[in-house]
This record gives sequence, C-alpha cells and structure tokens, in this order.
Amino acid sequence: MALLESIDDPARIRTLDEEQLAQLCAEVRAYIISCCAENPGHIGASLGAVEIAVAIHHVFHTPEDKVVWDVGHQAYAHKILTGRRDAFKQNRKYHGISGFPRMDESPYDAFGTGHSSTSISAALGLAVAAQQEGKKEHVIAVIGDGAMSGGLAFEGLNNAGSLNADILVILNDNQISIDKNIGALHNYLLKVTTDRRYNRLKKSIWDRLGAGRFREWLQKQVKNTKRSLTRADGETLSLFDSLGFRYFGPVDGNDIGTMTYMLTRLKDIPGPKLLHVLTTKGKGYAPAEEDQTVWHAPGTFDVETGRRTGKKRDIAKFQEVFGTTLLDLARTDSRIVGITPAMASGCSMNILQKEMPGRVFDVGIAEQHAVTFSAGLAAGGMLPFCNIYSSFSQRAYDSIIHDVALQKLKVILCFDRGGLVGEDGATHHGAFDMTAYRPVPNLTIAAPLNEAQLRDLMYSATQPAYGATIIRYPRGYGNGTPWRDRPFMYIEPGTAVKLHEGKDVALLSIGAVGTMGAEAVERASREHGIEVLHYDMRFLKPLDLAALEDACAKARHIITLEDGACTGGLYSAVAEYIAGHGLPCTLTGLGIPDRFIEQGTPAELYADCGYDVKGILSAILK
Amino acid sequence: MALLESIDDPARIRTLDEEQLAQLCAEVRAYIISCCAENPGHIGASLGAVEIAVAIHHVFHTPEDKVVWDVGHQAYAHKILTGRRDAFKQNRKYHGISGFPRMDESPYDAFGTGHSSTSISAALGLAVAAQQEGKKEHVIAVIGDGAMSGGLAFEGLNNAGSLNADILVILNDNQISIDKNIGALHNYLLKVTTDRRYNRLKKSIWDRLGAGRFREWLQKQVKNTKRSLTRADGETLSLFDSLGFRYFGPVDGNDIGTMTYMLTRLKDIPGPKLLHVLTTKGKGYAPAEEDQTVWHAPGTFDVETGRRTGKKRDIAKFQEVFGTTLLDLARTDSRIVGITPAMASGCSMNILQKEMPGRVFDVGIAEQHAVTFSAGLAAGGMLPFCNIYSSFSQRAYDSIIHDVALQKLKVILCFDRGGLVGEDGATHHGAFDMTAYRPVPNLTIAAPLNEAQLRDLMYSATQPAYGATIIRYPRGYGNGTPWRDRPFMYIEPGTAVKLHEGKDVALLSIGAVGTMGAEAVERASREHGIEVLHYDMRFLKPLDLAALEDACAKARHIITLEDGACTGGLYSAVAEYIAGHGLPCTLTGLGIPDRFIEQGTPAELYADCGYDVKGILSAILK
Repeated sequence: MALLESIDDPARIRTLDEEQLAQLCAEVRAYIISCCAENPGHIGASLGAVEIAVAIHHVFHTPEDKVVWDVGHQAYAHKILTGRRDAFKQNRKYHGISGFPRMDESPYDAFGTGHSSTSISAALGLAVAAQQEGKKEHVIAVIGDGAMSGGLAFEGLNNAGSLNADILVILNDNQISIDKNIGALHNYLLKVTTDRRYNRLKKSIWDRLGAGRFREWLQKQVKNTKRSLTRADGETLSLFDSLGFRYFGPVDGNDIGTMTYMLTRLKDIPGPKLLHVLTTKGKGYAPAEEDQTVWHAPGTFDVETGRRTGKKRDIAKFQEVFGTTLLDLARTDSRIVGITPAMASGCSMNILQKEMPGRVFDVGIAEQHAVTFSAGLAAGGMLPFCNIYSSFSQRAYDSIIHDVALQKLKVILCFDRGGLVGEDGATHHGAFDMTAYRPVPNLTIAAPLNEAQLRDLMYSATQPAYGATIIRYPRGYGNGTPWRDRPFMYIEPGTAVKLHEGKDVALLSIGAVGTMGAEAVERASREHGIEVLHYDMRFLKPLDLAALEDACAKARHIITLEDGACTGGLYSAVAEYIAGHGLPCTLTGLGIPDRFIEQGTPAELYADCGYDVKGILSAILK
Repeated sequence: MALLESIDDPARIRTLDEEQLAQLCAEVRAYIISCCAENPGHIGASLGAVEIAVAIHHVFHTPEDKVVWDVGHQAYAHKILTGRRDAFKQNRKYHGISGFPRMDESPYDAFGTGHSSTSISAALGLAVAAQQEGKKEHVIAVIGDGAMSGGLAFEGLNNAGSLNADILVILNDNQISIDKNIGALHNYLLKVTTDRRYNRLKKSIWDRLGAGRFREWLQKQVKNTKRSLTRADGETLSLFDSLGFRYFGPVDGNDIGTMTYMLTRLKDIPGPKLLHVLTTKGKGYAPAEEDQTVWHAPGTFDVETGRRTGKKRDIAKFQEVFGTTLLDLARTDSRIVGITPAMASGCSMNILQKEMPGRVFDVGIAEQHAVTFSAGLAAGGMLPFCNIYSSFSQRAYDSIIHDVALQKLKVILCFDRGGLVGEDGATHHGAFDMTAYRPVPNLTIAAPLNEAQLRDLMYSATQPAYGATIIRYPRGYGNGTPWRDRPFMYIEPGTAVKLHEGKDVALLSIGAVGTMGAEAVERASREHGIEVLHYDMRFLKPLDLAALEDACAKARHIITLEDGACTGGLYSAVAEYIAGHGLPCTLTGLGIPDRFIEQGTPAELYADCGYDVKGILSAILK
C-alpha cells in the first residue's frame, strides 16, 4: 500500500504516470476489499469503479472540477483518494463517514447522493452555475446503466442535450444494478456494445469503392446524413446523439490507460458529452465477480476464501415473509402479480419470480412507472402487489396520489424499509411514508407488528373491504412470531389490538417498533409497578377510534410510538383526536424527530431518536 | 351538426366512410368551438386532436379496445363522441363532467388522467393485463410531445420497449405544451420531421448504382445495419427504435384519411409501436392557431371575431406578483435565476424571461429535474427560484427531500396553484403540499395572505435567515392589497400577524384564505357581537409558538383555516401543540376534507368544503 499511503489529496494523483496509476488502482482495490471484509459495505459497485475514480482525479483538477457520483455507493475509491483513507475504516458507522457522497463531509463531494438517477440534473446545475459565473470548470456525472433507466436521468439528459453546458456524463455500464438490468435501454446498450457490423460496414464501403466522383458523392451523402442524425464524426450511431449528446465509446472502463486517454481527449471538447464505459461489478475480486447480486453488499467476509461470515439468524426477515406470502397468495389467485423497480432480490419478490416468472414485472429503477403501471394493471382487472423501498417510494408520490388513490384502483403497495434502516443512513431511512400518505383520500395504511401480521395484512388486503392499500414494514428481522404454517387470518381495516391492559398511561404503537414498546411496558410493570395500556394500532388509516376512546378514557398521558416522522404521522392523528374532542390528555410523541438521521446500527439510531426500549420506558415513567 | 347529432356511441363512427368522417371532424370542431366560447376550456389542444379521436373510434373497437389520453385536456372530441355530447355543455362545471377523462364517468375513459406523462405506463398496464387474461385487446396511448419529456413517459417507453405487449403510442407532436416545447427530444423530433436527407440518400443510392454484385452486397450490408440499429423495414432512423418501439411517421395527424389509413395498417402489427403524427394546436380556428399560448385555455370568447370576452380585473393575480417580484429581485442580485417546468407563461416567469432570457431555465415538463437542477445551481452558488404548480410538485417530492432539504441547499420553491384551483378539478387542486413538506427537516414553509406578503416573502427568502424555502400561494387574484410601489419589507421566519383581537374563539389562518377568515371575523363582530382573535400565521414551519400560546391562553375554542388538506397541515400542527401541552382547548379544522374534491368555481368548492365566509362564520358561532 506504499503508493496509496502517500495519497492524502488528489493533487498527487495528477503527477503519477500510467504504471503508477495502475499500481494505485490495485492498492485501492485491495484496500476496499480488506476494509469491507471487516466493515460491510457496497463492495461490488465500488470495485467496478476504481479506474473511473483514479482516472478522473488524474485528468481533472478536483475539487474545482466537480464530479457527481450517481447513487454514490460506487464512490469508495473516490472517498479513499480524497482525504478519507483512514476514515474509510469507519465507513457507514455511527459518527463515522457516510457510505454515500456528502457535501458536508468533503469539498470533493460536489453533490450529495444516495437515491438513483440524480447526477445528470445536479451536474447540469453545477455546470450552468459555473457558466453564469464565468468560471471554467469541468463537471462530470458518473451514472450506472441501471440508474439511467430512472425518469429523472432522462429528464436531465433531455435538458442538458439542449443547453450548451460543458458536462461529461460517464455511463458506467456493468449491466447490473442489484439484479440484472432489464428494459429497452439495457437492450440497446448491449446491442451497441456487441454489434460491430456498423463500423465494419463503414470501413468496407470505402475499401471496396474505387476512387472517383461516385465515391466522393456517396461519402458526402453519408457524412451529411450522419451530421444530421448521428454524432459529428460519425463513428457510432447513438440514442444519446439523438438527445443532443456527443457519444463516445464503448471503452473498457476497467483499463486505467484507456480511461485516462479518453478523459484527456474529452476534457476540452465543449458541450454535452457521454462516455460509455464497460466495467465489471466486483472487478478484481473473484467471488464478487462471480455472484454479483450477492456481492452487491455481502456483509462481512473472509478475504482469502470469499466465505461470507455474517450470521444468519434462524428467524425470518420481513422481506422473506413478504416474498413467501406473495407466492402463497399468487398460487390461489391468478389475478395477483408482483411489480418491483429493480428490487426483485432486494425485497424477496424473486421467490415468486422463480416459481412464476410470468407473474413478476421488474420494471428497472423506475418507481413512478412501477406504480402507474400497477395502476394500469389494476384497471385491467389484475391485483397488483407493488413493492418499493419506503424512501424510494417518495419518487412515486404523485403516481400514488394521482394514478392509484384518485382513480380508486386496488393496488397493494408494500413499502419495505419503512423506518430507520441503519447503516445506509439519511438518504435511505423510510421516515416520511406514513406522513406523506395519511392525508391522501381513499388509502388504507397499515404497518404490521410482526411476521404473522404482515402475512395476514397481505392476505386481508386482497379482500373486498380493502381498496388501495399501503403496507409498510421495516428492514431486517421480525421478532420471531410464527407465521408460515398457519391459516391466513382476516384483519378488519382500522382495528387495533390491545396488547396490555392498564391505566394512567397509554402507549399507542404502530408497526414493528411495538415489540420494543411491549418490552418497555413489561418492564414498567415488573420494575416500577406501572401498568400501561398498550394498543398495537396496526392501521394509521383508518384509525381505530374505539381504541383511542378507550385510551383517552383510561389514561391522562398518551404516548404514541412510530418508526417514522412524528410530525404528521400517528402522533398527529392522535393529537387531532385529543384536541378535536377537547380531551384532558397530554400527548407525547416517540418517533423520528424533525431532523435528518445519519447512519449507524438500528439500535444506535433508535437510541439517538429516543425510542429504544430505554427511551420508551423513560417516556412512560415521566 | 346533422352527423354529430346522430353519434350517441362510437359504434356508429365505425360505419362512416371517409367523406363522412371528414364531415364529422368538422362538426365536432365547430361544436367544441361554440361550447368553449361560452363555457371556457382547453380548446387549443382538443382542436388539434379531433382527427386522432375520430380515427381511433373509427378503426378500433372501443371500449373493448382502450385508449388512454395523456393529460386528457385534448380529449374533448373523445368525450363528445362517447355519449357526452350534451353533457359537454357542462364541461368543468360543478356537478358537470370533468375536463379530463375519468373512469367513473364513462367506460370509454380507460384510465383517468390530468397530470402529464402517465399514459404509456397506464396503457402498458392495461395491455399486460389483457395479455395475462388472454384477451385480444388493442391499447392506445395518445401523448403530446411536451408530455414525452416527463421522466415517467420515458420510464414507460423503456419498460414497454422490452416487454412484448401490444401497445400503440400515438405521439401527438404539435411542438407546444402551453409555451413552445424545448429540450433535446423536441430538437430531435423537429430534425426527424424536417430532415429528408436520409430518405433521399436511400433512394439516390439505389438509383445511381447499376445492377450487379456490388449493388447486391451494399444493399445487404445496409439492410443488416439497419436491422441491427434501426427499425426492421428501415424507413426511418429513430430514437424510439433504440428503445424497442417500431417507429412510424411522421404523418399529418390533422388529415383524417391519413390517420384512418395509418391506424388500420398498424392495428394488427404486434408489439410496441409508435406513430408520430404532426398536428396544429388550435387547428381549424384561426385565432387559436395564431396565438397558441393564449388559446391553450383562453376563457370565454366571441366565435366570429375571436375576441376574448372574459373580464380582466384591475387587481393583480398572485402569479403576476410572483413574476414581477422575481424580475425586481433578479435586477439586484446576479445570483438569482428562475427555473420552470414548462410553465413560463403559466406562472408569469415570462416577465423575467422577456427581460433577462439568460436567467430563466424552462426545462420542459420535468418537475423532478426542475428541482434537482435547481439544487445543482444552488450548490454552484446561484440562488434559484423554482416555480411549480402545487399539484405537479408532487412529482418532485423526492427531489425536494433528497436533493434540496437533506443537502441544505438554498432553493426557493414557489408553489403556484396551492389550494383549490376551481374548474380543473381533482387532479389539479393543490391539496397536499403543506402536509407533504411539514414533516421534512430543514424547510421553511410559508403561505402569503395577500400580494404584498407574497412579494415580501420572496424578498425575505433571499436573506440569510432563510434556507430552503417553500412559498405557496393560490391560483387567481389577490385581495387588492397594494404591493408594487413600496419598499420590500423583511419578514422574520416563523412570525404570525395578529389581524383582530378577541377572546373565547381564536381563528388561526394561513394563506390567502385568511381574507375570507377576516371577513367572517368582521361579520361575527358586527352581526353577533363575538370578538374573534385572528392570527394570520404566515408560516406553517416554523410555527409562531408565541401566537399559539396567546391563542390558547385567551380562547377555549381554536379554529384553524387553511386552503389544503387538514390532515397533517396547520390543523395537525396546532393539534400537536394543544395535545402536547395538555391544554384545555377544543380544536376545529377548516380546510380540504379527506376526500378528493371535484371541479367547480372556487366559490362553489370553498362552500362544498365548508370554508367559504359562511362556513367560517358558522364554525365561529358554534
């Protein structure tokens, strides 16, 4: 690691020769592997993008020249090379550095990322700002082929291609997001990459034609044509040329010599340019290259053997309950289909996909389309389960309001990763789903306490009393409640469950955090002799008014508990009830406070937000 | 109107010959013009799409074959031809028919629309549902070139182009949304349409080459090339072919013969197809063809002269205050730029655009990009004002959370059309903006009472105490408060204004509905001797806690008034305060209730929702 240890700043990288750059890439790669083996992270994407990062910092004058990393989990090399080599050991840890670029972490992080497909728009903003201010800056967006299917990326391309801003988009094409990429754009990129006939034709024509006026005429015609419909120097016919970009590539993005050559060449070409580079996810670490889906974020592992060392618990993750239940339901009802925006394995919809591939639609990273397409399926008589990670569902906010709720279409929206997600941090916490959708008419909103309730809610949502429904549940494991070998139980919309009888204090919880609530209630009884009335509300909408009435009749102090933003959520709903009826109760809200929460383990973050068992107990005792 | 009067159902249209179809188009057009002259509507787009509607119903077997109209304001001919000829006289009226397609209005409206760019996704859902159910149905999406720039449309294309569903997209290319369309896609469509060189080349080559082996070889090479990179029959090189669609066109979409010929030809070609048709917005009515922006939705007019007969009031619209103030501010601060998603005239940003064209960025219909691009501009040191209609801002929900608020970037978001908008109805009311953004950290959220306050808030937001800020204001006119010839007044964030002193009852209003509130307060005093404490809150976030404290100390009954969803909005914020402090107050919330509100005049809708002056007064008296 001799070379890497000398790099405290990209200025040094600009002085290295090609051999040294190759050496640096190798060292960075080894460093990423050894760090991630102990401290898990997004290793696959970052291994694939090492040469891109090194070449950018070699050719461009960062941080004056700016680079925006789309999604950002491929930016580990960039982080390590920009003053965060040692800090990288605390990657994704509580009070450590973020697993994604952050403007407040480093001046080299030109724009904060985390969600997909934002980089072209942000980079265009930076480029236009530089133009307005008369600065000569280069702005680069690095975006994966998966992220390119997001509508926002297209909107950015469409705008950039008609402005004359100096922007370079590096399309990092590794053919995979977490699962294999799909969609027409993907097919197109594959075609561009594999089909050499076009270039063969070009050469062959000129070789075969003798000199003379016909050759000149034909040459002129072909050039005119290409000028009008393809890039100016006519090497490759491209979708991106149609959108006003000069397209270059594809080239080997894991070859440092090629990358520095191309970036040097492109550096001073004005206007919007797109460089298509081919990389291998997991590059340089055999196990990661072999199973790219698993090695997207594999947990801890042994570097020598590639054996993954993370402990698998013998209870189920919520996502597995979702995936298994979806399959069980689909077996009994041919109208049921699954829709996922590029998260078939991430949400365990691959369980259904494996058994009934024709019943699952992976639409790529395209949350808006996932929902509106689901709405179309519902209008056509199907019963779609559309699964989206809670924080990504923010992309589909209008689709859910306008294409599902307003149209009264029965789409069952399952939001995985609702609440604090842990190490992925601020961009990935599912903080706003319950608050965002509670005001929207025609929706039923539920959050299960445990595995069995998730399963029963999914079943119940297929029944006639339910219309458009949101079921949100957290990342990770349930509490071990048996769920599989039992009949489905129907749950009436808007009904709560009393978990513990009590008076003076009432705890109203929604979702899986009710398990922590129940533990606090149990400790309050055992350790302090306080009996707390505890309702698992199950539904944010409709609310169980009888449960609220009971709680407010028995208790002067009401505590709400939710794994989401308090403002606007269950806390507000109960406040509306109390204030609306002028009841003599005092309300305390436990949940995500009005600030963005950083990364850490879930336990650390629950404590940070004051709703771990200790925090709940202390609210009860107050 | 002899022919039109015989059409109660599209079945009859299928029996007409070409001459009769042309006659029908003329009659439909005349009918739209005469109805819209008296009862205003979106006349321009609908006049341009008459032949498309007639041809679809002639060639396809609706409603079994399904047509989805993107946005839907171009679907008047469709409505008139599908059993709503007489109902069309009540278009956009309270308890009349909607100005947009609605599934619950007619079986011929295969999917409800209103917002842009949803049609391909919804149509794909319908097509895949038909496929799953083994039905032979045709599904057609009709989408404008403006709507095609929305990311959702691209997501739909990208998915459709890789599924083998039978879907026909009719790209209705009139080069204009409300203002002239812009963006790379627009440039591309223009190029395709005007550049005949490609086809000339193709013919010329074969004409000039003599017969023989070289000609055969070349022909084969060209065909191979085209097969790999363009559509199969090689007529036109196309962006859409790259995305897996078979592209046809461009053809004259205002020629009924051409349209029926093309649709008949395309009807039985399987898979995803795109027909590019050129139409003229306002077609067949000279004044509307001449000034397409004004005639997008011109209000009432005299058919003979084309003179617009709507009354222009001599006070300003909120949007004019926005536009004028933005120009005034931009003159004093070179960092200020304006960003609009295709609404330069719709939000009056054209006032700045006219004077300083380089300071306005119309990004096309692309709300997500508008916000993320603004965030990039802010990261680059500019001070962007991004104006979006409230209900369209739902598209940018994630961009506002993830790219503005989380990044702590100072983007000033101005939401026009906040609250009930009137005749555009359920899809266009700005009901959810305040509820959606209140839980999001780092945002300041304000809503001005009147013109002067809008102007002062815009000025104040440029000052250091403000970070990312949302200023939302309604459609239409202010209350006549002088605003122009006076110095800017700075408003401290989170400060309310006491409008009337009182006790027993307190009215807390936010936004321009405070004017109705003030009138009710005045009447309560004058007619009933009740003095109501009235605060104009101005800010939803941060809340003026001193004002709340004062209100709760003086009054047992608190009424909140807001032109938005109660649930989650000011009502909830005040409920949280009351319940959180255990105060002995009873709260009543006036605002949009938990149901979708249909079209009507604003006065009718305020009354419907119970917060016209009468409703407010009656809440006070209770």
